Amino acid sequence: MNKIHNNIKVIAFDADDTLWVNETYFREAESQFAKLLEQYETHNKIDQELFRTEIKNLPNYGYGIKGFILSMIECALELSNYQVSQKTIQAILSIGKEMLHKPIQLIDGIEEVLQFLHQRYQLIVATKGDLLDQERKLEKSKLLKYFHHIEVMTEKNKEDYQKLIHHLGIQPSELLMIGNSLKSDVLPLIEIGASAIHVPFHTTWVHEEVSDEISSKSDYRTISNIKEVLTLF
Amino acid sequence: MNKIHNNIKVIAFDADDTLWVNETYFREAESQFAKLLEQYETHNKIDQELFRTEIKNLPNYGYGIKGFILSMIECALELSNYQVSQKTIQAILSIGKEMLHKPIQLIDGIEEVLQFLHQRYQLIVATKGDLLDQERKLEKSKLLKYFHHIEVMTEKNKEDYQKLIHHLGIQPSELLMIGNSLKSDVLPLIEIGASAIHVPFHTTWVHEEVSDEISSKSDYRTISNIKEVLTLF
Repeated sequence: MNKIHNNIKVIAFDADDTLWVNETYFREAESQFAKLLEQYETHNKIDQELFRTEIKNLPNYGYGIKGFILSMIECALELSNYQVSQKTIQAILSIGKEMLHKPIQLIDGIEEVLQFLHQRYQLIVATKGDLLDQERKLEKSKLLKYFHHIEVMTEKNKEDYQKLIHHLGIQPSELLMIGNSLKSDVLPLIEIGASAIHVPFHTTWVHEEVSDEISSKSDYRTISNIKEVLTLF
Repeated sequence: MNKIHNNIKVIAFDADDTLWVNETYFREAESQFAKLLEQYETHNKIDQELFRTEIKNLPNYGYGIKGFILSMIECALELSNYQVSQKTIQAILSIGKEMLHKPIQLIDGIEEVLQFLHQRYQLIVATKGDLLDQERKLEKSKLLKYFHHIEVMTEKNKEDYQKLIHHLGIQPSELLMIGNSLKSDVLPLIEIGASAIHVPFHTTWVHEEVSDEISSKSDYRTISNIKEVLTLF
């Protein structure tokens, strides 16, 4: 059990919350958003409504900060019954721009792991989100030198990984994915015959959560700190 | 003069306004936007201010519809001195969502050209914009089957094309780019020793315009209809 194939050629890393802190910034933005609208609803209700708006808009906007800003504006209009002030809309735009320029905070130990692995395997980044935003973060992170290829994907389903494998010209068993999301970085990989290592981040977006029942059936390894990867090779 | 290298291996097509109509939808949206705000300023002034806001926000948002919607909202707030109504903000969000779901209108003759070329060359798409939006348009266009690879780029400068050539594992002289923007699809290619064919679209975004002086120094071919490509091979 918990097997990692022994013929790995390519190791793919998720980016947000695997290479660097990300979800924390969304949580902060949500809390600023709730504060802006607290005259209309409780924080809890505002959180719920924002999540509902984001999920509704995923087919329109996809993942990433720009879609998140647009969903905050839409949610503010609806929650306030179109009473929200123009200055509050401006404040929401500012929350978004600040998010786009947050400093990069690397996950502890990640550089050590990349340094070790990139001499032995082809490393790639496989991430969802805005292309510009992800490229900007990679640039700022100074991690670009470890990666052979950056794949920004609109979704991370089984089919998307199959396309990636085809594009890389390898077999499923030659790919290992490392990431913090069971739903996006682990389960679809196991399903197509690749390997995966789960490194949970302390915060997970509700949309990325999966039930214990589904995850317990799958054959993957969970580690609590990215540095443990070094002991597996 | 007007040379196309005779050792072409890969032909890259721009997407918006080269494979399908796009700029027309932005012009329509701008005109709807100006109508929404006409109580505050003349249409001409509104157009100018929106353009100014878009350019200012390019480093934040990049190209594509989501950034365009965010810039429309910001511009509406500023132009109206924060008087713009909440319903107008909602109307701007709706303009954006409509843009994301416009039908694909192929450029006349493009399929004939792709059909001919894809049997002889490796064809790729090299486009700016939102990843999700470009993938959705390619899917809807039914042109995906002609392309070996889709490259969504954050910018189309000399350096970006050099990276693309490196990624494709070819020489600059083995690449031919076909597109409607002199600035993005033609001049940087000529500069790095690749070939380019310019197929102007009837509308060009001001940001993509270049002076006659710059363009007259470069060695590329202009055709008025994509079907003329067929006579060049």
